[in-house]
Amino acid sequence: MTAITQPAPLAAGTLRIFPLGGLGEVGRNMTVYEQDGKLLIVDCGVLFPEEHQPGVDLILPDFGPIRDRLDDVVGVVLTHGHEDHIGAVPYLLRLKADIPLLGSKLTLALVEAKLKEHRIKPYTHTVREGDTEQLGPFETEFVAVNHSIPDALAVAIRTSAGLVLHTGDFKMDQLPLDDRITDLRAFARLGEEGVDAFLVDSTNADVPGFTAPEREIGPVISQVIAKTTGLVVVASFSSHVHRVQQVLDAAAENGRKVAFVGRSMVRNMGIAADLGYLQVPDGVVVPQKTAEGMPREQVVFMSTGSQGEPMAVLSRIVNGEHRIEVGEDDTVILASSLIPGNENAVFRVINGLMQLGAKVVHKGSAKVHVSGHASAGELLYCYNILRPANVIPVHGEYRHLHAASQLAIDTGVPRERAFVGENGTVWDLRDHRVTVAGQLEIGFVYVDGSSVGRIDEADLKDRRILAEEGFISIFVALEPQTGKVIVGPEIHARGFAEEDSIFDDIRPKIVKALAEAGEQGVRDQHQYQQVVRRTVGRWVGTRIRRRPMIVPVVIEA
Amino acid sequence: MTAITQPAPLAAGTLRIFPLGGLGEVGRNMTVYEQDGKLLIVDCGVLFPEEHQPGVDLILPDFGPIRDRLDDVVGVVLTHGHEDHIGAVPYLLRLKADIPLLGSKLTLALVEAKLKEHRIKPYTHTVREGDTEQLGPFETEFVAVNHSIPDALAVAIRTSAGLVLHTGDFKMDQLPLDDRITDLRAFARLGEEGVDAFLVDSTNADVPGFTAPEREIGPVISQVIAKTTGLVVVASFSSHVHRVQQVLDAAAENGRKVAFVGRSMVRNMGIAADLGYLQVPDGVVVPQKTAEGMPREQVVFMSTGSQGEPMAVLSRIVNGEHRIEVGEDDTVILASSLIPGNENAVFRVINGLMQLGAKVVHKGSAKVHVSGHASAGELLYCYNILRPANVIPVHGEYRHLHAASQLAIDTGVPRERAFVGENGTVWDLRDHRVTVAGQLEIGFVYVDGSSVGRIDEADLKDRRILAEEGFISIFVALEPQTGKVIVGPEIHARGFAEEDSIFDDIRPKIVKALAEAGEQGVRDQHQYQQVVRRTVGRWVGTRIRRRPMIVPVVIEA
Repeated sequence: MTAITQPAPLAAGTLRIFPLGGLGEVGRNMTVYEQDGKLLIVDCGVLFPEEHQPGVDLILPDFGPIRDRLDDVVGVVLTHGHEDHIGAVPYLLRLKADIPLLGSKLTLALVEAKLKEHRIKPYTHTVREGDTEQLGPFETEFVAVNHSIPDALAVAIRTSAGLVLHTGDFKMDQLPLDDRITDLRAFARLGEEGVDAFLVDSTNADVPGFTAPEREIGPVISQVIAKTTGLVVVASFSSHVHRVQQVLDAAAENGRKVAFVGRSMVRNMGIAADLGYLQVPDGVVVPQKTAEGMPREQVVFMSTGSQGEPMAVLSRIVNGEHRIEVGEDDTVILASSLIPGNENAVFRVINGLMQLGAKVVHKGSAKVHVSGHASAGELLYCYNILRPANVIPVHGEYRHLHAASQLAIDTGVPRERAFVGENGTVWDLRDHRVTVAGQLEIGFVYVDGSSVGRIDEADLKDRRILAEEGFISIFVALEPQTGKVIVGPEIHARGFAEEDSIFDDIRPKIVKALAEAGEQGVRDQHQYQQVVRRTVGRWVGTRIRRRPMIVPVVIEA
Repeated sequence: MTAITQPAPLAAGTLRIFPLGGLGEVGRNMTVYEQDGKLLIVDCGVLFPEEHQPGVDLILPDFGPIRDRLDDVVGVVLTHGHEDHIGAVPYLLRLKADIPLLGSKLTLALVEAKLKEHRIKPYTHTVREGDTEQLGPFETEFVAVNHSIPDALAVAIRTSAGLVLHTGDFKMDQLPLDDRITDLRAFARLGEEGVDAFLVDSTNADVPGFTAPEREIGPVISQVIAKTTGLVVVASFSSHVHRVQQVLDAAAENGRKVAFVGRSMVRNMGIAADLGYLQVPDGVVVPQKTAEGMPREQVVFMSTGSQGEPMAVLSRIVNGEHRIEVGEDDTVILASSLIPGNENAVFRVINGLMQLGAKVVHKGSAKVHVSGHASAGELLYCYNILRPANVIPVHGEYRHLHAASQLAIDTGVPRERAFVGENGTVWDLRDHRVTVAGQLEIGFVYVDGSSVGRIDEADLKDRRILAEEGFISIFVALEPQTGKVIVGPEIHARGFAEEDSIFDDIRPKIVKALAEAGEQGVRDQHQYQQVVRRTVGRWVGTRIRRRPMIVPVVIEA
């Protein structure tokens, strides 16, 4: 972690760029552009917690650096409708509901559906590729890019300080299902004009070669369906309209109906179909209830849960907690990536499905998934067509940012113009040069139940200790003048390996230690608690070699 | 999970086979063979916990079904020296120290070193390939197999009921470093004799093709070392003698010294070198201290920690908690697999190393690892050369067992003779036919600090709740006749999102609820505790939408 250094006040005619999330991690993407006292935000997503962050529901970008400046925000550009780019919008709008949101039709439809659940009705402005919008000092121009959700946009930002291109998430599928390719002509035009800073999706920068076309997946899914004599269940991400399109087409080819299962799948595909992003072959989609009443060999269920999420449809099917049952003759296709960290959960689902007798097809066994991100080969094309003066990789862990930076250097970007930053790094652009102007402090903002930002690292550390060791609580009421125990010690332990009878040993020790402390002049409740903590801690450490959390409560009798 | 059905008493002349671990999981391998009242055990390993088993150190096979029959055990055959095959031996010998252990020289040396830490001196008997040993009704014959540790053995077991071949872990590297190949001539001979049951390592059965030769790794490591101008750190498993051999040779080629770092690495390589399994080129190995004083470009550190384990050498280097420091010009090679579930930890280490400026080489970027297990293509060879009458895949999750079974069927084993079982499945072999005779109940036996088998699923559930939600403890002393609170409520919470002041709200509610309960005739401590639990639970659920563990303590004032 770089030392925190407050940047100098921003000079007129300089563009400042600082990410509040998305660097050093895959998720909670949010970048702030500042010039002449105004702020433009690109994306506002969430990050999903890892196993060392137990109980956390979501992690937000740290709004801290702009919290007092929300009146200066001229708009939030949302590049596409994935959670890691739009998921934190409700939390931002809770602070100020009238910040304008800009995005493509599908992106805004997905954001609005999400905001509706938070009972927020936003100010929105729909844009499409080729549009330009002046937002304070920022002239924005939107460029079509291809990703694993339709209608994704890159945004070019022109100010008096120079020209920036910010890709959002993208890849360069040259044969996409909807024929909407990443607009390299526009990239070329911007390159001719002179791109001063290129903020580029680095997620797949360490993957050699090229991401395969989405189109190669459809025939594989169709073949799998054709070979299945029972039910087919396809699990994927609930926003992956093109993947679902291929499932619909493959089902139609095989004379099957498709039912969407799972709240987010039903909602998102409803939106996509209504807006024309999903082409539903005549009569192919039926409600889940209808499909449940049909012969199994005529049905495909399109569901969520491809990451083994315990509450999603697929896990519930495995656990026998869902109306849909799978067994012999049925096939389950996991048409999705395996996000690192989810392996155990996904393999649990696969084992469970196989134990039920179902056949399981996943990206390890057939081509049923391609990534949504540009691989190293594609990034080289981008760098060469743009010839950016400065490169700032975003959207990635350090190893991704580093790989994307190295690829830029390979194409001739000077090493000192290819940056690897972190959340809170402040870059200033002036005279075609990007320099590091400072480093803001950026924390993790945890959403936990209805609380936002109230639990912190200390709470999570407590939780990890509780998880690994459990706790012992000791209640004692005593005479403060003597340390004489009047009530207790009452001892309770949870998540702990031993029977309660083991504490018979320690009660007299506590009583003795408190009396001794009283003799030595201890009068204070807090000190008495320390005596209890030490006595119990030492005993449990040597006797059972454990270090549970010890919670002493001493009150005056 | 199959229903528990007690098998019928074992008829004379029938061989019974039941696994106490290792089926449905990768780890804690242990299989029991029973005939004429005698038991032969093959392997006795540990399983490492997953993230839903917090605080657990190790998981043991369930000795329950043989606990009262340890006098009948004629011996434990240990196929090789990996933890998942020998790690539970100390816990078995704690129950009866004089059970004889049979294994190859290296295997027994590793077991003895481990037992020494447990202060157990075992009864051992060294065997090698080609040896036969009569153990009660079991004639055992040992067969050389090739794996990611030297001196691995398969064991053929002849009884009056028939012939079994149990592979242990193996692959069929045709060009192994030590020229000790899996002995297919012996497999052929046993096949001619007639293998009635084949218990086979299924770990890589769902991997198509063939596992690449270990020998291909050496030149890659040598090239990486040659290109490095600073320090080289290689991390791998501490038992992988052949991998370490290649590192020694590569270091020697490049004029570097190697120092072993980490307790298990130092211990195991000491044993391997003493016994002649590791050939140390003249003067190449130096103590860590010596290496630390040498120019960085002359040193290779060979360490543990390739799985991102937080306490192992590599993680401590990343966190600046180790004497060895890495930075610019240095290279770290992760010469190991990435065990599913460890991805986040490993990527944290990789990101950290890269942030320190080091180059990181891993199996995703170069051929620095091959598996130790036979892939699908190799298993086909085995099935075809053996032509076993019955196949029982072991050593794998359900998906692996299923794949190994399907491969057997593909080679002509009748479907009903290719079994997919689970821990506790009881198979009986008689007249060349294996039948399922019952299903024993097999639990997880958790080692947790110094306790073995004392924590259970309920404790782990408590721990998961504590991890995700924290706890609230409430102490109250009251008059049982009236429910009148005399002392308290004292409320403490940990791992919980809120400030203590939030409890100001709930204290009067508790006092009121207890008084009402007293009026309604409650007199019992347990019932008063329920009142507290309900009152607090309802409040926290509706007010903060959380479900922490609630620990009420009510005592009589």
